[in-house]
Amino acid sequence: MSSIPKIVILGAGYGGILTAQRLQKALNYNEADVTLVNRHEYHYFTTHLHMPAAGTDSIEHTRVSISKLIDEFKIDLVKSSVQEIRTQQKKVILEDGTLSYDYLVIALGGEPETFGIPGLDKYALTIRSINSVRLIREHIEYQFAKYKNENNAQEHINFVVGGAGFSGIEFVAELADRIPALCKEFDVDPSMVNIYNVEAAPTALPGFAPELVEHAMTVLTKKGVTFKIGVAIKECLPGGVILATGEEIKASTIVWTGGIRGNRLIEAAGFEAMRGRVKVDEYLRAPGHENIFIIGDGSLMINPEGRPYPPTAQIAMQQGECCAHNLVAAIRSQQPKKFAFSNKGTVASLGKGQGIAVVGDKKYKGWTAAQLKKVVDMRYLFIIGGIPLVLKKGRFL
Amino acid sequence: MSSIPKIVILGAGYGGILTAQRLQKALNYNEADVTLVNRHEYHYFTTHLHMPAAGTDSIEHTRVSISKLIDEFKIDLVKSSVQEIRTQQKKVILEDGTLSYDYLVIALGGEPETFGIPGLDKYALTIRSINSVRLIREHIEYQFAKYKNENNAQEHINFVVGGAGFSGIEFVAELADRIPALCKEFDVDPSMVNIYNVEAAPTALPGFAPELVEHAMTVLTKKGVTFKIGVAIKECLPGGVILATGEEIKASTIVWTGGIRGNRLIEAAGFEAMRGRVKVDEYLRAPGHENIFIIGDGSLMINPEGRPYPPTAQIAMQQGECCAHNLVAAIRSQQPKKFAFSNKGTVASLGKGQGIAVVGDKKYKGWTAAQLKKVVDMRYLFIIGGIPLVLKKGRFL
Repeated sequence: MSSIPKIVILGAGYGGILTAQRLQKALNYNEADVTLVNRHEYHYFTTHLHMPAAGTDSIEHTRVSISKLIDEFKIDLVKSSVQEIRTQQKKVILEDGTLSYDYLVIALGGEPETFGIPGLDKYALTIRSINSVRLIREHIEYQFAKYKNENNAQEHINFVVGGAGFSGIEFVAELADRIPALCKEFDVDPSMVNIYNVEAAPTALPGFAPELVEHAMTVLTKKGVTFKIGVAIKECLPGGVILATGEEIKASTIVWTGGIRGNRLIEAAGFEAMRGRVKVDEYLRAPGHENIFIIGDGSLMINPEGRPYPPTAQIAMQQGECCAHNLVAAIRSQQPKKFAFSNKGTVASLGKGQGIAVVGDKKYKGWTAAQLKKVVDMRYLFIIGGIPLVLKKGRFL
Repeated sequence: MSSIPKIVILGAGYGGILTAQRLQKALNYNEADVTLVNRHEYHYFTTHLHMPAAGTDSIEHTRVSISKLIDEFKIDLVKSSVQEIRTQQKKVILEDGTLSYDYLVIALGGEPETFGIPGLDKYALTIRSINSVRLIREHIEYQFAKYKNENNAQEHINFVVGGAGFSGIEFVAELADRIPALCKEFDVDPSMVNIYNVEAAPTALPGFAPELVEHAMTVLTKKGVTFKIGVAIKECLPGGVILATGEEIKASTIVWTGGIRGNRLIEAAGFEAMRGRVKVDEYLRAPGHENIFIIGDGSLMINPEGRPYPPTAQIAMQQGECCAHNLVAAIRSQQPKKFAFSNKGTVASLGKGQGIAVVGDKKYKGWTAAQLKKVVDMRYLFIIGGIPLVLKKGRFL
């Protein structure tokens, strides 16, 4: 190891940003060289993407420049896309250069998992980045314009959302909220618009208590959403989907939210992974690599009930904090600490003024849950950027 | 003829609205049955369409509900699309019904003329209605989103506007004005965007004095427009155009403004027409049909220099007034009056704060011309809707 250890963090999502911020606070001057690599010059709030995707909130409420979050005197920022991780050589190949590391943090986030359903990767849109949600928003608006120019062809105003988990439900809610404005803008009769939410699992929002799931479905059905629960998408075509029941839904817009997997670079690097997620040790390290930490969507951890924790922003943030702690400990030859997830609760937005939430053993619905969602968002803004960021990016209304 | 003569006006554009308004003022109670047929429930300002097409102004500044302009106690409004004109039977076939008439006013407006250039009718967008300009606006935004999601493929931010006449120049100016905002919204480097304005004629803006044409081109070149003057489009492809020089411009957006012709229903009805324009008599009547008036883009009139008047809003409005006068005269068995065009001048907008204008033998450039454009727009709003419409739809800034 060189005189000053080199730490490279791949990805500035929830996990990467938290790791970097905690490192910059904990490390002493010249104790380590830290480099944060990210494809974009901004960090974005994945849990908020459903709003700009539907067009109910702006992109600028959904991202913040990384240079506003990181002290560039302490951490080097590299805007580049990772091409390859070479663990043998302790190198990371970027699209325009190479970085060597002593310690590596892989916080590259997730990718959509399409479970091999034919056509989904080609014809479905996915909510996964600022670029992708701008595409969804524009795609939707374009379909309304086409509807009016192509003899009111119904497929242009049919929308299929695959997946009724967290992301699917939150997006469907925003989309339903956006429809009246779109109909007004494009002179479309709102009763002609159809939103289908298709989910293969036997229930929407798995993990939530049945009474909250029922509440969510009632709220969304009133907003005009048609649910197809317990029905898999068999195939995705350029102009619609075919369901396992044989039913065909014609739609020019298919948004797939049905699954997430780790980044493909992880498998390519030779890590043993299940859908791109590596079962890390209790210190968040990749098996057999004491100097490589994997956090966020690329990591797999088993909860006390023996099931994997779902990939969420909450766990990624906590992993980032733990990872930073363990990096500092490693550099100082101290004992690392075990990661222990502390569940702060879960909130799902159901559109304007509506939501469901579970905090501890308490359940919330409606306005209270919607406010909780904002509190969670603001708490995150506060953690990464203090009051100024809350004021700048927070949604108070 | 039945006891009360039936007047049917097809189209509520500049000509149709003026005809209807003047009739409703001039006719006595029960002197005639007047029906105004229009495809949409609104009248729109064709001369303003370049702004919502580029996204620099809203649709709502570009149209007004016909029921706000017409007294429905005096004139029947029928929202329908004309399918056929049967002059022998004195009938008009609508998509959902039939109207019989004693007097007919054909004010159906124009259609894009593509001069047989292959692919233009299929792959180019045209500025001709509220629906079409919404499509253009959304198409443009969608290309920016695609650019960011498809490896910065250059064709998505190349724009070709065919035609550097009035509409082409005004649209190109607005598009150039819109680019900075689009680049900001989609994180695109403005220097990467290309706007090409291609014109087959030896000059842009034919009819304007050379010094004004030069001024216009200088202003637009500074805004980033690349002119190809004296170069025809040979073919339009799904992903660009091939010019007569053999040069290919890759572009996902082609907007064709290069020509206009009369509505195809006119030829289908058996009128002798040149590109859908009928050479009407001095009273605006179709040859051989004393009871049929054709006004606006479907009419062809020769000016004192022996050339056809270009189809403009100005001439359509004056024809509408004359047509109403002659309808009343016909009903009252009075002498009709000859149409005489009174040229109030011409103004072309070159984007925010810029323009060129000719009024009588005076020429104007820059800010003054831009203000004149607004005055012309407001004068029109005043004519059809008085002060309330000016206040509601006028652009004062």
